[in-house]
Amino acid sequence: MSAPLLGRIHHVGYAVHDLDAGIARLGETFGLPVEVRETMADQRVEAVLCATAGGFVELIRPLDADGPIARYMASRGEGFHHVAFAVPDVAAALAELAARGAELIDERPRRGLGGHLVAFVHPRSGLGVLTELVQAGHGAA
Amino acid sequence: MSAPLLGRIHHVGYAVHDLDAGIARLGETFGLPVEVRETMADQRVEAVLCATAGGFVELIRPLDADGPIARYMASRGEGFHHVAFAVPDVAAALAELAARGAELIDERPRRGLGGHLVAFVHPRSGLGVLTELVQAGHGAA
Repeated sequence: MSAPLLGRIHHVGYAVHDLDAGIARLGETFGLPVEVRETMADQRVEAVLCATAGGFVELIRPLDADGPIARYMASRGEGFHHVAFAVPDVAAALAELAARGAELIDERPRRGLGGHLVAFVHPRSGLGVLTELVQAGHGAA
Repeated sequence: MSAPLLGRIHHVGYAVHDLDAGIARLGETFGLPVEVRETMADQRVEAVLCATAGGFVELIRPLDADGPIARYMASRGEGFHHVAFAVPDVAAALAELAARGAELIDERPRRGLGGHLVAFVHPRSGLGVLTELVQAGHGAA
């Protein structure tokens, strides 16, 4: 077997209805400050990265009732949405995953929260878990 | 606000029906090797830690139809189960969380997979996500 394609766990993403209530809860319970807050119109969400000492919890709220996060929440409710692993080169990781037959959501890296290059792998190739690749070190967080 | 109570993300835990099939999938797709494999009779599960470069994916299968993981899977199916954050001192983190009014599943640290001291925080205090604290550096992984 070759070396692991995935690095450290950069963040876990949670879907919430109320971003400010979620931020307040993570702050009051776990002491996590907000590091990045951004509206991502193409994804139809507003999202924040709350910093742990060495990782992040991303909170995502839908901007309307029709985007992918809104549809996810309609069936699953609030809570876990995805996990993101750091990789040194998202494009190279996508090429390797494609060669291994993985089902990709993003064929090419795109700009994600905080300015990172990111790409998503379909839950069917992640044991039922939506899996994000993050090229960390190129954005704000 | 005080410093974050949570450190890096130590692992994400996935519930699976077939541990060997899950291990094979994580190996073939993401190149993750198994680092620890253990039956935890008190939790009524068998579990493995598969290593990324800097983190782990934990796979958990129920040993019978009645334990907490089996009940979870009966309603939610396979996929994400919990997220674990590293902390320097689980007992101290539990005391601080209790003081902040968090709802704890484990009042005291207990031995977890790989020999770590661990404790779980109820999803009601984790934005709907079952949250584990791991005192890393005291076990095999």
